[in-house]
Amino acid sequence: MRWLVLSVGVKSRAMDEFRLIDALVAAMGDATQGVFVILGPGDDGSITSIPAGTELVTSVDCLVEGVHFPIDAPAELVGRRALGVSVSDLAAMGATPTHAVISVTMPVTHERWLLDFARGIATAARSTGIAITGGNLARGPLNISVTAMGYVPEGAALRRSGAREGDAIFVSGTIGGAGLALATSLQSDCAQIDALAMRDPEHPLVRYYMPRPRLRLGQSLRGIASAAIDVSDGLLADLEHVCRASRVAARIDLSRLPLTQGATAESAIVAGDDYELLFCLPPDRVDELRARSTDVQVTHIGEILAGEGVMVDLDGAPVEIRRTGFMHFT
Amino acid sequence: MRWLVLSVGVKSRAMDEFRLIDALVAAMGDATQGVFVILGPGDDGSITSIPAGTELVTSVDCLVEGVHFPIDAPAELVGRRALGVSVSDLAAMGATPTHAVISVTMPVTHERWLLDFARGIATAARSTGIAITGGNLARGPLNISVTAMGYVPEGAALRRSGAREGDAIFVSGTIGGAGLALATSLQSDCAQIDALAMRDPEHPLVRYYMPRPRLRLGQSLRGIASAAIDVSDGLLADLEHVCRASRVAARIDLSRLPLTQGATAESAIVAGDDYELLFCLPPDRVDELRARSTDVQVTHIGEILAGEGVMVDLDGAPVEIRRTGFMHFT
Repeated sequence: MRWLVLSVGVKSRAMDEFRLIDALVAAMGDATQGVFVILGPGDDGSITSIPAGTELVTSVDCLVEGVHFPIDAPAELVGRRALGVSVSDLAAMGATPTHAVISVTMPVTHERWLLDFARGIATAARSTGIAITGGNLARGPLNISVTAMGYVPEGAALRRSGAREGDAIFVSGTIGGAGLALATSLQSDCAQIDALAMRDPEHPLVRYYMPRPRLRLGQSLRGIASAAIDVSDGLLADLEHVCRASRVAARIDLSRLPLTQGATAESAIVAGDDYELLFCLPPDRVDELRARSTDVQVTHIGEILAGEGVMVDLDGAPVEIRRTGFMHFT
Repeated sequence: MRWLVLSVGVKSRAMDEFRLIDALVAAMGDATQGVFVILGPGDDGSITSIPAGTELVTSVDCLVEGVHFPIDAPAELVGRRALGVSVSDLAAMGATPTHAVISVTMPVTHERWLLDFARGIATAARSTGIAITGGNLARGPLNISVTAMGYVPEGAALRRSGAREGDAIFVSGTIGGAGLALATSLQSDCAQIDALAMRDPEHPLVRYYMPRPRLRLGQSLRGIASAAIDVSDGLLADLEHVCRASRVAARIDLSRLPLTQGATAESAIVAGDDYELLFCLPPDRVDELRARSTDVQVTHIGEILAGEGVMVDLDGAPVEIRRTGFMHFT
């Protein structure tokens, strides 16, 4: 029995996928490169260098259509948001970003969507200094998973678990902006977001679609902060994470909160997605914090106490908060 | 205005998720620890050490219900398979595994499913020596993404792109087993798979649900192999990947293929999911390969040629292959 040469079928089908992946890598351009990248996309794994004397920080986040971004949100904005959200975790660890890998499933090949998404990823990658070194594309419901990596000097990572009684609690920037956006339709497009970002970087839609990981602040907190977390579930819920990990309690005062214009304190502390840093430091390090140049304001909002739970005051009097931060599975 | 103290609502809701995540971490037991782990699950990111003088290898894979594993497959088997598939990419790079992070979305909290899944992940983690240092759980269609990391001595990673004219092509173990499983219902459970694995490690269902990443072989190929890839898309498609990356052609002979019992060469070369290593090496290194102790047989199946494409012979005469390896998005 003898047939003709060559697996033409395999080749021609495979080329469709190869061509698409090549196009996606091309759309990301120099965002797939970086000083730490030895081998970027296209092999079984990427190869990166990690500076001597450092430790690797790894974080994974997942974004699902209709849960973490609106159905029919523009792909480029989804890409920007997906990468920003993930790099924010590196900021909260005080890490310097090195590389990220992206896993995407979608029901059918939507080449235009993927190319726009790749461009959005690349925009956020360039602005945060992280390289996209690999990914995975499969058939399934629209779902995006980003694993981001970075390094910290040995022993210098910011953890959630180091808060101690008497520490001061700070938050960076303003909060409540993403919550305001979530209360709207979230309808926008890239051109509108870029125009808004030029005019008003604090605009809720800009905050939502272009999270600004507080990388410089996180790195400047190494050796000073006793604990840190990024505000993703909501300030109150994230402070609870810190208290639980550190086995302490906390008290914050709503009147001290640095609010995004238009936000109320009551909604700001339970809305997630602000991606500011919430951190604690001993009172005698506060001057040092102020002295270290950072690119964002920080505000003293409360204190760490012995015990457990988070107490909320308004102008010194305790209040009850009825709403909750964003929770999955409830 | 004055209300009562404390955000009870936030706490009680949050505790459900905390308790579940704690339970998942507990279910993985010592699989979350390892010599490279400085900080495991529970913070914004994990912290790991990477040995000095090495480079980091990062790979991401995604598994979707109904695409990469059967709908209603037992969760513990899904966990084993998900991690094994991802670690196989590290084997193909010649890497020593360090850690992995897992992202899972599911439509509703199915605690029992998640605990079984975590146990399956842990089983595969222990058997491959990788630590699970973090994860992410969100609401959405069932979707699993695993990012696996490991290290290689500087410059020693096995890439796809180094194959040269005249190199010998080898494959490890036997192929076609997972393809046989895919041709069946894939219905099984953990007890059955464990019993089968004791009696017949080459059984198709064992091959499918418990991929054995060829880590020792991959590591022993450092410095010898010119190119390597794991057989996930199908031997023919994966050899095409190598040829494309290396800008060479290849010819293999079906009569030389090491087939899993019951498999035919025609189906074995287009079925994916075997997770053996396919690799190339210069003819003068073949003796060295044989001398290095490995835990799996390797079989010489063909040669690298100048040109492009993969040619298939049967007993020296060219044949045409009509079917294709598994492809997404076609």
